[in-house]
Amino acid sequence: MALLVCVTGRDNSKLIAGLRESLPDTDIREWPQTGDLAEIEFVLAWNAPESLWQQLPNLKVVQSFGAGVDGIPLAALPSGVQVCRIVDPALADDMAEYVLGHVLAHKLRLSLYYQQQQHQVWRPKRACSGRRVGILGLGQLGQVAATKLRQNGFEVLGWSRSEKKIPGINTFWGQAQLTRFASQCDYLICLLPLTAQTRGILDGSLFEAMPTQGVLINVARGAHLNEADLLHALDTEQIAAATLDVFASEPVEPEHAFWQHPKITMTPHVAALTSLRTAMAQIVSNMQAMQKGEPLSHCVDISLGY
Amino acid sequence: MALLVCVTGRDNSKLIAGLRESLPDTDIREWPQTGDLAEIEFVLAWNAPESLWQQLPNLKVVQSFGAGVDGIPLAALPSGVQVCRIVDPALADDMAEYVLGHVLAHKLRLSLYYQQQQHQVWRPKRACSGRRVGILGLGQLGQVAATKLRQNGFEVLGWSRSEKKIPGINTFWGQAQLTRFASQCDYLICLLPLTAQTRGILDGSLFEAMPTQGVLINVARGAHLNEADLLHALDTEQIAAATLDVFASEPVEPEHAFWQHPKITMTPHVAALTSLRTAMAQIVSNMQAMQKGEPLSHCVDISLGY
Repeated sequence: MALLVCVTGRDNSKLIAGLRESLPDTDIREWPQTGDLAEIEFVLAWNAPESLWQQLPNLKVVQSFGAGVDGIPLAALPSGVQVCRIVDPALADDMAEYVLGHVLAHKLRLSLYYQQQQHQVWRPKRACSGRRVGILGLGQLGQVAATKLRQNGFEVLGWSRSEKKIPGINTFWGQAQLTRFASQCDYLICLLPLTAQTRGILDGSLFEAMPTQGVLINVARGAHLNEADLLHALDTEQIAAATLDVFASEPVEPEHAFWQHPKITMTPHVAALTSLRTAMAQIVSNMQAMQKGEPLSHCVDISLGY
Repeated sequence: MALLVCVTGRDNSKLIAGLRESLPDTDIREWPQTGDLAEIEFVLAWNAPESLWQQLPNLKVVQSFGAGVDGIPLAALPSGVQVCRIVDPALADDMAEYVLGHVLAHKLRLSLYYQQQQHQVWRPKRACSGRRVGILGLGQLGQVAATKLRQNGFEVLGWSRSEKKIPGINTFWGQAQLTRFASQCDYLICLLPLTAQTRGILDGSLFEAMPTQGVLINVARGAHLNEADLLHALDTEQIAAATLDVFASEPVEPEHAFWQHPKITMTPHVAALTSLRTAMAQIVSNMQAMQKGEPLSHCVDISLGY
């Protein structure tokens, strides 16, 4: 029985040293040094190659090394394999702080004043008056952000795939209510999981429904956004501005049109960084639970995709 | 009996039309068309020429057209003259929102990411971890800001000229405790009134006491700050950054060193703009109170200067 770490594109030395210390009796391997693939029952995965999954006859658990499970081909996994994600309570707080900070940045016109400062321009303007914030996705991240925004005097609307009632939030659900929801958002925050249903949801028809002073903030996944539609919506003044923390391809290539766009604020996928300590504790706990045949934590519903 | 409006450097046509509508029986004049100066009992003032005050033998009330009374020579006024200021409850909320927004902007490294975006640089960095915010000045503005910051998870310290105890705030007072206070501030917010005692309080000795990751936010008056000391403190890495909304001379001249400084964020005196409607209501109410011999609202203590 072995645990395979297949987390690509980062230095995993601290992670693997920590896991070996916490799980001294476990055979821990790092991709691509997989050894005998039939021995691997637990995979810790992030951006793993698609070809990996069909080579593991005895796979029992896929533990995502993040809050999302996109990149893990849920439907293609053998039935009975459990897929878990990291749920970092600090992550929801960090995300909410990012969302509030960037809503206030737009409200207080920070980007305008940064630009004016560079040109030695003194031109006072009242702060934006809009206080309606719509949140796409009312899972844990969405609900913590909603609470923080309400505490700060914002009116919060929410949209989710299926019906949800949450005190203090004006909720909408399903495709049929999406444009009515969007039409009431001075700020529209995407905090959805990435699924087949939500891929490309931030598109031209949504922007068209939004008010012209509307601001999009995407902190979920780059694939939620139709990038060409966003550029069109900004350039034709359907919406006023966008703040993006996630992108279809990361790092964003230097020639991408977003970098120099005066209405786009970019941050390099920093809205909520999972703490290594928290992640390790949950990986270790799920590995031990699997070994003892106990229930795992933070499993996803394979049929829903999150 | 006449009311003189001496508010310089702005278009007062809406203000005067509004006052004439609310006070139809009052003789309302606009400086420099003062008429007989002996008839003037009530002056609405902002940046009034110093020479005005000694020419008004029957002056009873000076109503500042703002939250501060700096620019009104309190000590030089005949005894018995009352000085009032505008207290806009929305102003304290706006100020608190500005303070929170700019604290979060530093915490989330917005200025760094704006600069990186301009150069197509993708370089993620964890948010700053400091959560201690010190507020200089615990009047109405300071207390509303303190409450908002506490609600958002910040640890709040406060300093005032004289002893104050406020639940939930670690308070310091007097010159003797100023550097001990400053040494514990990740963010130091100036919300003091401008008096002889507070002029130049943001100086080299204060910056030296602050931690090197410290950020100064001045939203009070430009004269609170020793500008040369700030540039020295930033350039020698005594403190990390500054956000300034107020300046010794406004608008700031194009050749001023602040504009191009990479560690300074400037906004053009917009942290809290008094609403004309609120200001007019208080001016009218104080004018009517004076005419009826009733107590005025929001008078300052001339001996304290605020």
